Amino acid sequence: MEPIISTDNSRVKEARSLQRKRQRTAKQACLVEGLRLCGDAWAAGARFQRLFFVPDAVEASSSLAALLTEMTAAGVETLPCTEQVFRSLADTVTPQGIAGVVDLPALSLPASPGLVLILDGIADPGNAGTLLRSAEAAGVDGVLFGPGSVDAFNPKVVRAGMGAHFRLPLGQCGQWADLVDLLPPHLPLFLADAQGDLAYDQVDWTQPAGLILGREATGASPQARSAARAIHIPMAGATESLNAAVAGAVVLFEAARQRRQRT
Amino acid sequence: MEPIISTDNSRVKEARSLQRKRQRTAKQACLVEGLRLCGDAWAAGARFQRLFFVPDAVEASSSLAALLTEMTAAGVETLPCTEQVFRSLADTVTPQGIAGVVDLPALSLPASPGLVLILDGIADPGNAGTLLRSAEAAGVDGVLFGPGSVDAFNPKVVRAGMGAHFRLPLGQCGQWADLVDLLPPHLPLFLADAQGDLAYDQVDWTQPAGLILGREATGASPQARSAARAIHIPMAGATESLNAAVAGAVVLFEAARQRRQRT
Repeated sequence: MEPIISTDNSRVKEARSLQRKRQRTAKQACLVEGLRLCGDAWAAGARFQRLFFVPDAVEASSSLAALLTEMTAAGVETLPCTEQVFRSLADTVTPQGIAGVVDLPALSLPASPGLVLILDGIADPGNAGTLLRSAEAAGVDGVLFGPGSVDAFNPKVVRAGMGAHFRLPLGQCGQWADLVDLLPPHLPLFLADAQGDLAYDQVDWTQPAGLILGREATGASPQARSAARAIHIPMAGATESLNAAVAGAVVLFEAARQRRQRT
Repeated sequence: MEPIISTDNSRVKEARSLQRKRQRTAKQACLVEGLRLCGDAWAAGARFQRLFFVPDAVEASSSLAALLTEMTAAGVETLPCTEQVFRSLADTVTPQGIAGVVDLPALSLPASPGLVLILDGIADPGNAGTLLRSAEAAGVDGVLFGPGSVDAFNPKVVRAGMGAHFRLPLGQCGQWADLVDLLPPHLPLFLADAQGDLAYDQVDWTQPAGLILGREATGASPQARSAARAIHIPMAGATESLNAAVAGAVVLFEAARQRRQRT
């Protein structure tokens, strides 16, 4: 099969358009780049509409070749393209020669989640993706992206998520009220806040709960503040705050620790 | 005082040279950029050799003006420069109009540290800086940068450290043996490792200990492996590993939690 040589190819243009949130929402698809991420999404059962690859990159990597063979056999449309064309659709600075157009996953929160993570205005893509990765590892049942948060399927968030996007139920809500609708009624909510009066390890995390993380610079929204009990992580030294991805992980793994001890 | 208008000014050239590790080591100084970081370093007692500033930026910010006045009164050489000159010495993409040349701090580890963090080949500047910030907040007594780690005073590490560099004893060791020399004899060492046999929360962190974090991609060095007991963070889902800055924070705050409970 001849490689695509034009950056104006319609499928290439469509893939490139998925770098924009509006297009991702309209097409309910996102771009997944790199061998590791494509492999993780594939293994998690994500539906690939098509896969772009650079033949030289496939020649150079047996794992890439194996994934390509497997996807082709499963009926995924696989499209060779020149390196220049590939660069035109990739978001990464040093593209790895493989990228897929993948349906946005439609995993929904369980009816009675044990632990839900809520991002309230987390705008940094690296922090949001790292939080997803940590949330999955800590056994969270789902993550909700609230108003003001980065789009969950922004390519940088997907990269930092290391595949968690395709294994963990995710919800995105433009309004706080929509977010509340996704949660079970009466789910106790806790807000990580340096000024909170309760230490995070004094919460009984063996009970169902939602953890809200607010934005690093300006703090949580008024809605989050009124809906949740504020908890803090006791800190030594002159540190005023923790990185949002770090604070989230510290609380989530304390919850995981308590749940392990109970069983 | 007339602003410096030439990027060839000797003091500007010297400041710019501090973006390179070799020059930082030779001159035992580093560049600290931005109002917050300069203020934090100053408050922590760091010795400023000089401070560069853009007059327009000082006009626009009363906090910046206050810091400048305080430093001038304390005898720090303060040098106005044009925005173009300032950009030539700054590492940041959007410089804030203030940057200081600061002596590398010379804080040493206490003779009997309670908890030491050891970075074994942590090369990512953001991770290294975030780890310093978390380490200070968790009450660590000092951080040692082992072989293969990023330079502690790399401008990106300093930015992510949020001032921890000037409040926390730091050591940098090109050889593992030099690092061991800085530790008290017989200090028990633990290595965070997804394959470790002991869960991190089963360690008695109320006792003196060193925590080693290895590089994300390739794992810890043979020296670290042979010197330390491997501990893991139990993980749910298909996650294979955590971000190094996250894994470090989870273990350090478990140590802090145990130490708080003991008292």
